Parts: sequence; structure tokens; C-alpha cells
Amino acid sequence: MQVNGPATSCGVREVLDRVGDKWSIAVVNQLGSGPRRFSELRRAIDGISQRMLTSTLRTLERDGLVHRTVYPEVPPRVEYELTELGRTLLDTTWELMNWALEHREEIDRARSRYDAR
Amino acid sequence: MQVNGPATSCGVREVLDRVGDKWSIAVVNQLGSGPRRFSELRRAIDGISQRMLTSTLRTLERDGLVHRTVYPEVPPRVEYELTELGRTLLDTTWELMNWALEHREEIDRARSRYDAR
Repeated sequence: MQVNGPATSCGVREVLDRVGDKWSIAVVNQLGSGPRRFSELRRAIDGISQRMLTSTLRTLERDGLVHRTVYPEVPPRVEYELTELGRTLLDTTWELMNWALEHREEIDRARSRYDAR
Repeated sequence: MQVNGPATSCGVREVLDRVGDKWSIAVVNQLGSGPRRFSELRRAIDGISQRMLTSTLRTLERDGLVHRTVYPEVPPRVEYELTELGRTLLDTTWELMNWALEHREEIDRARSRYDAR
């Protein structure tokens, strides 16, 4: 793949709009271990607001990455799970998470050096 | 790695703040093929504003992912390149880009279906 050619460059923003977002990555990762209810996701993803989680789930559903099921109970139970397409993204989001976890101390040291300038 | 345990969940936001951002991913990808000047990055990354590129580069530099070199010419030439740490991120950002490029049509179809509901 050629990222520097004009054809691809034009699509960079559009392409990354879909998946280059920390909340999408966090939700996809959480759903990687199975279906979750809204409240479970909210608890599991540190720092996400109700509004942001709602909007992230809607975008992921619209993009065909997440499937939303409403169970006709009282009160209705709503569950979110990855679609087949969503599962194909999982390897990459895991790698990104792993990379960040692996290098967090190195990044912290770099920040301290930068801030001490 | 256990993403659902309390220890890791607490760090999800912090971890993804570092790399889960479409502009960071786009800049890292662009620098993957070698050093670039500000204006070259700006042209190559569709839709990024001058202000957003400045702030993205500063964050990447602070995190130790990008190195900034000022060449004492008139006018001064400034170049950005990936550090060793930045290069380790490249495989993952490439995969994310590739995933998005590979599945863009599938995503487009999902969107059309969703919007037609």
C-alpha cells in the first residue's frame, strides 16, 4: 500500500475517522470478550461519559461494527456485541492497546524530559 | 493481558489518549516513509488544519514519538521524523490504516443500510 500517493492521501481523514478514535478503540476492545450492556461498558471504560458512549456506540453500529439487540423484557435489556466485521478490527485494536501499555513508562519518561526543558 | 480487570480498565483512557487519535495515526503513518517538513505533512494529510498539525506534532514530540530538528538555515528549515519509539508504533498504525482501507466499502454499505431504516 502506498500512503504517500495522492489517491490514498485523499482518503486518510475519511479512513481514520472510522477507527482512529480512542473511545471506539476502547469499546471494540471491551466487546472483544463478549456482549455487554450499556452500563457495563460505561463502568469498564474509565472516563467515558454517558453521552460519549451513546454516540460512540451509535457510530459503531452505523458503521456495521457493533450489533445492538433489544430483549423484550421489563425493563428492556439492551446488549451490544461485535459483528463479524467488528471482530476483524479486534486484532489491530488489541495491538494498539498492547503497544500503549508496553511503552507507557517510556512515554512518561519522554514527557518528563520534554516538560523539564 | 487482561482488559477487563480493574487494573487495566483504569488505564484505558490514559493509554488510548496517547495513540488513539486519528491525527496522530495519520502523522505517524506519513513519517513512516522518512522525515518531513511541516508543510509537506500538511499537504499529505487531507483535512488537517495548521493548528491541529502543530498540536499533534507537539504531543508526539512530548511523548517521545517524533523528533524535531531545526536546521540553521535562512529561513530555518524544520524537519520532523519518527524516533526509535515512534517506529515501533508504525506496524500497528499501518495495520489500522490497512484495515480501514480494506473495509471501507463494507462500512459504506453498512452506513447506507443504517441510514435507510
